[in-house]
Amino acid sequence: MINKLIENIKKTQAPIVVGLDPMLSYIPEYIKKKAYSEFGETLFGAAEAIWQFNKGIVDAVCELVPAVKPQIAMYEQFGIPGLTAFKKTVDYCKEKGLVVIGDVKRGDIGSTSSAYAAGHIGSVEVGENIYHPFNEDFITVNPYLGSDGINPFVSICEKEKKGIFILVKTSNPSSGEFQDRLINGRPLYELVAEKVNEWGSSVIGDEYSYVGAVVGATYPEMGKRLRKLMPKTYILVPGYGAQGGKGSDLAGFFNEDGLGAIINSSRGIIAAYKKDEYSRFGEKGYADASRQAVLDMKEDINSNIGR
Amino acid sequence: MINKLIENIKKTQAPIVVGLDPMLSYIPEYIKKKAYSEFGETLFGAAEAIWQFNKGIVDAVCELVPAVKPQIAMYEQFGIPGLTAFKKTVDYCKEKGLVVIGDVKRGDIGSTSSAYAAGHIGSVEVGENIYHPFNEDFITVNPYLGSDGINPFVSICEKEKKGIFILVKTSNPSSGEFQDRLINGRPLYELVAEKVNEWGSSVIGDEYSYVGAVVGATYPEMGKRLRKLMPKTYILVPGYGAQGGKGSDLAGFFNEDGLGAIINSSRGIIAAYKKDEYSRFGEKGYADASRQAVLDMKEDINSNIGR
Repeated sequence: MINKLIENIKKTQAPIVVGLDPMLSYIPEYIKKKAYSEFGETLFGAAEAIWQFNKGIVDAVCELVPAVKPQIAMYEQFGIPGLTAFKKTVDYCKEKGLVVIGDVKRGDIGSTSSAYAAGHIGSVEVGENIYHPFNEDFITVNPYLGSDGINPFVSICEKEKKGIFILVKTSNPSSGEFQDRLINGRPLYELVAEKVNEWGSSVIGDEYSYVGAVVGATYPEMGKRLRKLMPKTYILVPGYGAQGGKGSDLAGFFNEDGLGAIINSSRGIIAAYKKDEYSRFGEKGYADASRQAVLDMKEDINSNIGR
Repeated sequence: MINKLIENIKKTQAPIVVGLDPMLSYIPEYIKKKAYSEFGETLFGAAEAIWQFNKGIVDAVCELVPAVKPQIAMYEQFGIPGLTAFKKTVDYCKEKGLVVIGDVKRGDIGSTSSAYAAGHIGSVEVGENIYHPFNEDFITVNPYLGSDGINPFVSICEKEKKGIFILVKTSNPSSGEFQDRLINGRPLYELVAEKVNEWGSSVIGDEYSYVGAVVGATYPEMGKRLRKLMPKTYILVPGYGAQGGKGSDLAGFFNEDGLGAIINSSRGIIAAYKKDEYSRFGEKGYADASRQAVLDMKEDINSNIGR
C-alpha cells in the first residue's frame, strides 16, 4: 500500500492528505437541515449529515490528492451511527481510488493490538467466512506499550500489504511533556524513531517501508532531524494550517527524492468556506472551496519544497 | 463514579473487575451455532454470539463483583456489528448495577480527545437533542500526547462525574521499552504518575480522584512504588492470571485502607471452563465456571492482602 500511496503522490504531484474530521459546526446548514428532516435530530441525523458533507468534499478533491485521513474520533463521538458513517466514508474514498489512512491511534498489549489490526487493516474469520471489517489502507498507531504492542500491526501489514504510521512526535503544544524528555541525552521521540526503523525494516516496499511515522509540522527542526534518522520511513505530517504549521516549515520533512512526507490538513480544507479567504464560495459551494484550498495548499507546499 | 466504584467494592468485598474480552475461540460451540443459525457466519453472527456469551457471564457474576471492563478491540474487530454488541454489553452491565470501565485506550490532540471523551463518557448535541453515545462510567486513556490530550477527558469527568484510568506502567512484557527509560535518573512511568496526580488533583471524590492509573500486576515492585507516589489515585491492575500476575504480587497495589486498587482478570474468568481446574462445569456451564473463578480469585486476593 505504501507503493500505491507513492504512485498516487507522483500522479497528483501533491504530497497532501485531506483530513476528513467533520465537526457538526463545519457542515453547511442546508446539509444538516436535509439530514435532520430525514432522520431527525438524532445520532442517525448527525451521521447522515457527516456522510453527505464528506461525499461532497471527496467528489471535489479526489482527482487532486493521493489520500484522505478520516479521524475516527469525529465519527465515534456519534456512536454506532457515526461509526457507520466512518465506514461508508472509507469505502467511498477507496472506490474513488484514494488511499485511506484511518487516524485511529490504537495500540495495546499484543493480543489486543492483534484485534485492532484485524479489524482495521486485516481480517477476521467467522466460521467459514472471512471479513475485512473497516478495511482502511493505513492506520495510525500509538507506541507507548512498546514492541509487543506494535508487532501485531506489522505482521498484518506484511500479510495484507497495508501500512501504519506510528506516533513519534505529535503536533500538539504539550507533545513535549513526555516525548521530548531526555534519555541519555536524547529525546524519547528519537528512541521511538529508532524503533520505527527497526519495526519497519522487514517490510520495505519498492522505495519506503510499510511502517511510517507521525511527526508534527509544528516542530520543523525536529522533523528535519527525524527525516535523517528514518531514511526509509514515510512521514505523515499533521499540524499544517489550522494548528500553525506553515509551508516554509515543511522542506525538512522531505527526502532528496522529493518524497518521504505527506502533509495533512483537515479544518483548513474541509471548513475552507468558513474562512474569509474562501467565503466567496458560500455554503453551497463548500466543496469547491475545499477544492480551491487543496490547490492553494499544493502550490504552497511545492513552492516551498522546490518543486 | 469513583464513589460508586468504591461503594460497589465495599459491598462485594471483591476488588475485582471482570474483563469482558471475548474471543470467538472462548465462546462455547452451542452459543456460536445458535447465533450463526440465526444470523449466518457473518459479522452479525459473531456479534450475537459475543453478546449472548457476555450476557451469560454477567448474569452469573453481577452480584459478586463491582465492575466489568469490556475491551473494545475485541468488539471493534467485528466492525459495526461488533461495536453494537459492545454497546449492548455496556448498557446491560449498567442495568445490572455494575460499574463499566471501557478499555478503549484512546488519546489524541486536544480537539480529538474532546470528541473521544464526548462519545465515551460525555455527550454530543445534535440540534436540540443531547445524546450519550457509548456512556461507559470510566475509560482508559493513553498519555503519550501529554496534558492537552488528557485535559479534555478530565473536564468531561468533572462535568459528568465519570472517571478515567491513564496508562502508567502497562502489564505487557515490552512495556519497559519506553516506559522504564530513565529521565534524570527516574523512569518515564514515574513522570507519568506525577502528571496523573496533577491531572487528578482538581477532581477528587469522597476518598479518591476521578483520575486513576493503569499499572500491571506483572510489575509488583513498581506497583508498590507507584502506590506511594499516587496516594489518591485508584489503580486498575491488569495482568493477573493469564498474563502471569499472582495474588502474592498484589498487596503493594493497595493502600492501608484496603482500597486503592482493582484487579482485572479477563481470560482467567470468562474462559475458565476451558481450564482443567474448571472443566467439570463443561461448555454448558461456562457461566458457572466463570462464577467459580471469580470466587476463587476473590479468595486469592483477599487472603494475600490480609483481609
